[in-house]
Amino acid sequence: MNGELKNAHAALRLNGFPCKRPENVTADDFFSGLLASPGDTGNAAGSAVTAANVERLPGLNTLGVSMARIDFAPWGVNPLHTHPRATEVIFVLQGTLDVGFVTTANRLYARTVCRGEVFVFPRGLVHYQRNNGGTPAAVISAFNSQLPGTQAVAQTLFGASPAVPTDVLARAFQIDGGLVEAIKSKFPPM
Amino acid sequence: MNGELKNAHAALRLNGFPCKRPENVTADDFFSGLLASPGDTGNAAGSAVTAANVERLPGLNTLGVSMARIDFAPWGVNPLHTHPRATEVIFVLQGTLDVGFVTTANRLYARTVCRGEVFVFPRGLVHYQRNNGGTPAAVISAFNSQLPGTQAVAQTLFGASPAVPTDVLARAFQIDGGLVEAIKSKFPPM
Amino acid sequence: MNGELKNAHAALRLNGFPCKRPENVTADDFFSGLLASPGDTGNAAGSAVTAANVERLPGLNTLGVSMARIDFAPWGVNPLHTHPRATEVIFVLQGTLDVGFVTTANRLYARTVCRGEVFVFPRGLVHYQRNNGGTPAAVISAFNSQLPGTQAVAQTLFGASPAVPTDVLARAFQIDGGLVEAIKSKFPPM
Amino acid sequence: MNGELKNAHAALRLNGFPCKRPENVTADDFFSGLLASPGDTGNAAGSAVTAANVERLPGLNTLGVSMARIDFAPWGVNPLHTHPRATEVIFVLQGTLDVGFVTTANRLYARTVCRGEVFVFPRGLVHYQRNNGGTPAAVISAFNSQLPGTQAVAQTLFGASPAVPTDVLARAFQIDGGLVEAIKSKFPPM
Amino acid sequence: MNGELKNAHAALRLNGFPCKRPENVTADDFFSGLLASPGDTGNAAGSAVTAANVERLPGLNTLGVSMARIDFAPWGVNPLHTHPRATEVIFVLQGTLDVGFVTTANRLYARTVCRGEVFVFPRGLVHYQRNNGGTPAAVISAFNSQLPGTQAVAQTLFGASPAVPTDVLARAFQIDGGLVEAIKSKFPPM
Amino acid sequence: MNGELKNAHAALRLNGFPCKRPENVTADDFFSGLLASPGDTGNAAGSAVTAANVERLPGLNTLGVSMARIDFAPWGVNPLHTHPRATEVIFVLQGTLDVGFVTTANRLYARTVCRGEVFVFPRGLVHYQRNNGGTPAAVISAFNSQLPGTQAVAQTLFGASPAVPTDVLARAFQIDGGLVEAIKSKFPPM
Repeated sequence: MNGELKNAHAALRLNGFPCKRPENVTADDFFSGLLASPGDTGNAAGSAVTAANVERLPGLNTLGVSMARIDFAPWGVNPLHTHPRATEVIFVLQGTLDVGFVTTANRLYARTVCRGEVFVFPRGLVHYQRNNGGTPAAVISAFNSQLPGTQAVAQTLFGASPAVPTDVLARAFQIDGGLVEAIKSKFPPM
Repeated sequence: MNGELKNAHAALRLNGFPCKRPENVTADDFFSGLLASPGDTGNAAGSAVTAANVERLPGLNTLGVSMARIDFAPWGVNPLHTHPRATEVIFVLQGTLDVGFVTTANRLYARTVCRGEVFVFPRGLVHYQRNNGGTPAAVISAFNSQLPGTQAVAQTLFGASPAVPTDVLARAFQIDGGLVEAIKSKFPPM
Repeated sequence: MNGELKNAHAALRLNGFPCKRPENVTADDFFSGLLASPGDTGNAAGSAVTAANVERLPGLNTLGVSMARIDFAPWGVNPLHTHPRATEVIFVLQGTLDVGFVTTANRLYARTVCRGEVFVFPRGLVHYQRNNGGTPAAVISAFNSQLPGTQAVAQTLFGASPAVPTDVLARAFQIDGGLVEAIKSKFPPM
Repeated sequence: MNGELKNAHAALRLNGFPCKRPENVTADDFFSGLLASPGDTGNAAGSAVTAANVERLPGLNTLGVSMARIDFAPWGVNPLHTHPRATEVIFVLQGTLDVGFVTTANRLYARTVCRGEVFVFPRGLVHYQRNNGGTPAAVISAFNSQLPGTQAVAQTLFGASPAVPTDVLARAFQIDGGLVEAIKSKFPPM
Repeated sequence: MNGELKNAHAALRLNGFPCKRPENVTADDFFSGLLASPGDTGNAAGSAVTAANVERLPGLNTLGVSMARIDFAPWGVNPLHTHPRATEVIFVLQGTLDVGFVTTANRLYARTVCRGEVFVFPRGLVHYQRNNGGTPAAVISAFNSQLPGTQAVAQTLFGASPAVPTDVLARAFQIDGGLVEAIKSKFPPM
Repeated sequence: MNGELKNAHAALRLNGFPCKRPENVTADDFFSGLLASPGDTGNAAGSAVTAANVERLPGLNTLGVSMARIDFAPWGVNPLHTHPRATEVIFVLQGTLDVGFVTTANRLYARTVCRGEVFVFPRGLVHYQRNNGGTPAAVISAFNSQLPGTQAVAQTLFGASPAVPTDVLARAFQIDGGLVEAIKSKFPPM
């Protein structure tokens, strides 16, 4: 068969993602085992996000929903971030977490959530989760987007590629350029 | 204070649900403990759905997402049903389930899902979950609606109030009216 | 010319359906004669649905609306079904029908509608129409989706391919497995 | 009881329209007999539009769909107009009509449609229907909005209140002010 | 390289417009210099619209917003028109304009707007802007669509290709056919 | 008249904002002079945002679009921020600006924009504008939301009320708590 044409066929997409012909769809297109195992929290933040979004669970395409699992080492933190395209709701699988989000009126809504409890982070607002105990914690996150996107604030600001200009950061945070450079050095572009 | 006016104020709503003034909102408006405990599965189906939607978690209003917890007794079933306004994604908290949905082309997509695994039920399609083991099972469900609604097919058809006419049911299922009446007797209007 | 490439070009689609270049569009792309003639109601239900949706009326693509015609033999029934992606409004062309839908609170809203009258079936809810007279009847249906989809409840449940497990059906309807098998035999997979 | 407060209660609305408590909803809220009889076509245009939208069929609220009936005297015309918020699909109940719409590229798509045939007028585009025969004609229109709105172009331009400035009209149509005034005199503000 | 396949690749589109691979996107995809210079107002209307929509600013694809610049010669007019898919907000760059729109209830909302002032034209409604002074004027328009579309009413009605039937126009405007022809002669199909 | 009831009436709202009766609407409800004058840039950032959104321009309610004006002192900066509910397009009124946004893949798209040029900041992504010259600069911003909201990142993180926990910030930015406190001291809760 013609390999190039196979590529052309492979390129048929709906909504930016591959769209299978109905006769090729199986139940596995609506299934994921990705969230069954804890992510590796052996990093600076002590947390790991594992996403089951349309990039990995193709049956979500056009359906406007997805899930993720977040694991936390003892005292680990899912650093301050936003999801540009979705509201998030978390359900605590284990452990106890301090969570919060900040509104556009600069109000912080925060509290402690325990196993089995639920908390809402409205669309686009900066938020965080922190394991407040000495044992691992984990949550399941639900999003009303098949591809919510994430901006980890510190990485976005100090580790973008190309870099955000130092004086733009200095002015925003009212710190000097040397300090900006020092923080940038901790966030190598990914 | 004027009680009548208090009523008038109480009636201020957005999107059909109460809308608090910003100064009265607290973190608890975005929190729910409802899903922390298993529902009571001591019923005919051997399952229980506990919903954390906008009716019980007011902070979800306008945000287009909600969660539920479904518990299953050994061999319990969440009977065939639809959600008119949402896609559902489940995450298995414990146990092993047989799950499936039927498309508008009458194709069944079904498989077994285990602890930590994820399955998608597209918007509006008939689906079910069944505990395929002798121990309790539970899942967390996420919906891309703050009020997805549920139609349990058998209750909807045979237990509506007033009743769906017997001959309409007989014709749909190609069974006789006596059998329709017999099934109706098992689904008293709720 | 290269036939394979012609195929590749044929595959250019918008929203999952073919998208013509503007210079090739004609008035006929916005026209359909499909609903002019009654469908063949010589079947068990005594009804026939003829759809003018985006699959057959390509100009509807992206426009979010479509129509269908439903014909009824004397005493014919359009069996209980849902449309996962649309609200339906019917206009009675001829005859008198008994119609109804069931809400998520298990309330049946039903009444008789005559020639020229209109009735609404909200998105995703189970509903039916039944010719309550000895002469043919017909309605025009409008949907706020270019491809509303249909799940005929009995066919979906008892005639899916592969089959919905018998015990899942037995549990849902609180009937025994033999009866489930008997009903299944009347709904051969399509 | 306090009449003023009753007014306040009457003002409880969802989406700008009254929202009944569920216990007060009946099947009649989803029904309309408005379209059963022809409208009075004894006017200059020889046509009459009868709408079954959310203003008259309250059950349509939030459902995003509505219907209308258009009647035509022999040779009657539904004058050039737009619907700012909806695509329209017509089904011809009787008679034969010449119909057309103009795209944003100034292309006219027009043809004749007969009893039982369907034609689509995409959202927001100028269109018309004309009875091309000597007997009455009628169509049913479906819209993907519960309140599509209508701008009859000539009435909008020449019969607005206050009036569109004469020179604005003269410049647009490249006609002199006297002629604008003459046309305005035929469209008294309604 | 295979030219045909390159064509096939060129055809990969999202939402009807080309979709670049992320590695090929640059800041220039989100930039336009098109609105920096006044359009040529040396025409009958004395106005010129320059659009920065998704056709010319590809980074707008899927983002639901666009801009345009409208320039006016002294006493120039942007003739009566609609945007089928967007609300428009204008900001006056220079000069003084008389602006207005007509509602579906045939109400004209009109006033004079000066440099730095803002006015809103709701989605789909007929509107105009007229320079009410002897010096050039200009506005920036924002739309909540990446491709709002425009129907200049007079050109749409009297200059479509093929032409709108003369008697349809005569009936709509209550003028005779000779006058319709005379106006048509001023709007040659574009 | 009854003052309490006047309050009740005042509380009638659509979409969270006051909804006038049609007979009370005037052209001024669609007008704003707020953006005609430069904002006061005599502050630490050297910039000022003046918004014409639904809070101040009531006619925008339900229309999904709004505008703002941003003024910059020489070398002034509109600090890094997001809009949770809108894409932004800017048009440069005067001066020359360095602008940029960071994607969810941590890519910075940045360039210099001059008078009359346009740049797009996609929904929800962190972005900035900086006057790169010694004279004042100004832009007009358009949003596809009537209330886009703004999170100035530094104020959100370091000046929320109550405060985001110091260690959450320290972990996110990989700086020590003393430095967090020092930065917090520059962002008193507003």
